[in-house]
Amino acid sequence: MTADQLAAAAEGIVGAVHVLRDDASRAAYGTDALDRGHPADLVVRPGTTAEVSGIARLCHDARVPLTPRGAGTGYTGGAVPTAGGVVLTLERFNRILEIDAPNLLAVVQPNVVTATLQAAAEAAGLLYPPDPASLQRSAIGGNVAECAGGPRAFKYGTTRHYVLGLEAVLPTGEVIRTGGKSVKNVVGYDLTQLLVGSEGTLAVLTEATLRLVPRPAAARTLRAVFPDVETATGAVLGIVADGVVPAAIEIVDGECLAALAAAGSRPLGPTGAVILLIEVDGSVAAVEADLARVLGACRSAGATDLRAARDGAEREALWRVRRDLSPALRALAPLKINHDVVVPRARVPALFRAVAALRESSGLRMACFGHVGDGNIHVNILLDPSDAEAVLRARAAERRLFEEVLALEGSISGEHGIGFTKAPYLGLELSPEAIALLRRLKRAFDPRGILNPGKIFPPPA
Amino acid sequence: MTADQLAAAAEGIVGAVHVLRDDASRAAYGTDALDRGHPADLVVRPGTTAEVSGIARLCHDARVPLTPRGAGTGYTGGAVPTAGGVVLTLERFNRILEIDAPNLLAVVQPNVVTATLQAAAEAAGLLYPPDPASLQRSAIGGNVAECAGGPRAFKYGTTRHYVLGLEAVLPTGEVIRTGGKSVKNVVGYDLTQLLVGSEGTLAVLTEATLRLVPRPAAARTLRAVFPDVETATGAVLGIVADGVVPAAIEIVDGECLAALAAAGSRPLGPTGAVILLIEVDGSVAAVEADLARVLGACRSAGATDLRAARDGAEREALWRVRRDLSPALRALAPLKINHDVVVPRARVPALFRAVAALRESSGLRMACFGHVGDGNIHVNILLDPSDAEAVLRARAAERRLFEEVLALEGSISGEHGIGFTKAPYLGLELSPEAIALLRRLKRAFDPRGILNPGKIFPPPA
Repeated sequence: MTADQLAAAAEGIVGAVHVLRDDASRAAYGTDALDRGHPADLVVRPGTTAEVSGIARLCHDARVPLTPRGAGTGYTGGAVPTAGGVVLTLERFNRILEIDAPNLLAVVQPNVVTATLQAAAEAAGLLYPPDPASLQRSAIGGNVAECAGGPRAFKYGTTRHYVLGLEAVLPTGEVIRTGGKSVKNVVGYDLTQLLVGSEGTLAVLTEATLRLVPRPAAARTLRAVFPDVETATGAVLGIVADGVVPAAIEIVDGECLAALAAAGSRPLGPTGAVILLIEVDGSVAAVEADLARVLGACRSAGATDLRAARDGAEREALWRVRRDLSPALRALAPLKINHDVVVPRARVPALFRAVAALRESSGLRMACFGHVGDGNIHVNILLDPSDAEAVLRARAAERRLFEEVLALEGSISGEHGIGFTKAPYLGLELSPEAIALLRRLKRAFDPRGILNPGKIFPPPA
Repeated sequence: MTADQLAAAAEGIVGAVHVLRDDASRAAYGTDALDRGHPADLVVRPGTTAEVSGIARLCHDARVPLTPRGAGTGYTGGAVPTAGGVVLTLERFNRILEIDAPNLLAVVQPNVVTATLQAAAEAAGLLYPPDPASLQRSAIGGNVAECAGGPRAFKYGTTRHYVLGLEAVLPTGEVIRTGGKSVKNVVGYDLTQLLVGSEGTLAVLTEATLRLVPRPAAARTLRAVFPDVETATGAVLGIVADGVVPAAIEIVDGECLAALAAAGSRPLGPTGAVILLIEVDGSVAAVEADLARVLGACRSAGATDLRAARDGAEREALWRVRRDLSPALRALAPLKINHDVVVPRARVPALFRAVAALRESSGLRMACFGHVGDGNIHVNILLDPSDAEAVLRARAAERRLFEEVLALEGSISGEHGIGFTKAPYLGLELSPEAIALLRRLKRAFDPRGILNPGKIFPPPA
């Protein structure tokens, strides 16, 4: 099938106005937050599940790569083509279909923006907990495909814990529904959970049934300053040992504080310090009691400054600085490679020591922040991609970082996925037998390998 | 391969003392809590993962059915052979390998009894939340294989939410490790979550890494009496709307109360009433505040009697009665068929109306209790299996029940699995396309279909 024939067939399915072939569109839909990728040959904007099915079948029949795309805010290239073909954008699937307050459910189309769903849940007195930093732009479909996390994962878990059911189109065109509206379901293998985090390589998600929770009546946010990572981690372990479960426990290192200062952002603390941002939520009675215990744990661990936000505006200001971190770091260097590694939380100091050693040996700037309660740290390597020699040092540092993380019994990705950026490293974490099994699962969904090729699996040597 | 050759080969792998062929053993390992099954040809008791792998490879090579078995407390026949072959009992895998308090982790072998793990977690100031009623006898491996729930699932989720990693032996003999010690992990498809709830049909679990949580400092349990299911469900919805998240919200219907009375158990309430058992847990401050709000919601909904347990002994007594329910019902009739259906919680009254209609039309005794906060109700059909005509009526009622549940957008199994008992009904809930996909997944793990055959998938027509 020629490119023209493919385009004509796609137009027959979705209408000519929803098939884009101009260079600007091909380029725009060929990149994401990572800013790397390959232009699409064709961009298709279906409006219904039946149209998604038609496009899948077309690509299957023609053996053309098909890359599903949500908001394009990912960090590992999950939504961009690696070898041209069709980009199927779900941008027309942007409706909240149902908020069912008594049953704590939402039914949404995949391109509902995370913050939009959160606002709708809030209006019904409920909470949709997953809160990736990109929540103002990222879409639920991508959140589900990557199993997005965020600060609140410490108490509430990641996106995985909120997906009850999915409608999905297989790369062969069949439409399946998994799970449903019940919070417990053990009928057959859990296709819902298999699709969560499958990075758009097994099926195209066209609808999600999500679990909501009652909105906590109160929340308090604390900013604590520590002299170093050891004392900050000590505070985290003290909080856990005391039995308090904050909504979020975030860490921000000295490099990040310097970046915020350089960006003219409101300072979180003195340069060189290490900051914890801790939020407790729950009933009014619980929150004040928990805050007192968190303050006690921080003091015992050696915090040098403690300040609890006094009102919603102060609280929001703290979290805004936290969300400003990524842009502030990006301003420091043309390329920011964000690795979201995870270790058991007591081993966070060992991870930071490993990063310090890598900083030393590579001569590269590295800034760390993240979800320290979960041991999930974003290690950002900052460099100029036009400096070929620096790129080589960054690659070497990246591999060494992953090896250190795995030696600490951690994982090379906690919430960003593998995409194509980490695909070469899959074999560091998973055995050949496990990868062979993953490949068999992939084939069970996608016998011709057309759906989002070049992701997750290591490229041929 | 003859039966003698198979036995000799198995003895070569695990040692003669761990291969059983006597009739008593074959029968004992051929049944479970359901009291239906088929004797094993051979019972094998491996002691190491390598031995499990050897037995799997032997069965794969010889094309012999292999049924993994934990404590044998399941209700759907998951651990019993449907066509002879080898039963692989994991009874020698009974050690807690690690409790890591700072990292809130446990590493256990599959045949650790649920209550044993709970006690070990408690000794470390922690909690392992899943609490199936069988927890004094059921084992973690079976809990994982079936995705066991229990009362606390309302707040804490089911077993699925606590499994971070697994060691598993594929039916072809390969040993894989999935997930690990980090609480977040998006590296490759989530094999951990795929194996949870796979009912021993994809792999034999040989080790589990589990997430623990801080033990709540306090808990209060309330028993509330309602005139009917409508008012009781109204209280549940009132609690949810008020933003309180109790650890557990259980319902017990009038038929159950009659059964408890007949069994001479301590009464939970007057016969004919409907009872809610509600437990709140958390910090001391939160628990008293939450209890007050729960009491208020129950009163507003029309509770006629409310009593909060005053101490641990009273609290334990209430939960003991709840756990006595199954045995009390079993004493009423030779056969108790327990269907653990689920509906969105606001539709629980509609489910009970459907059960009342079935009770009427079938003339069979049906008693309901369960996890009403999750909409997960155990509908127990009581009958004499020697009454062939009653069995037919029960079968018809069962199918009608499942149809009603699905019309209410529910699920035919919330925590007991499909096994062989619900296998004929899989197609009521899942489409042919979805079942075909499940079969392809099964083949990706088990190309010869030797592992736990006759489970989940509908038998040939």
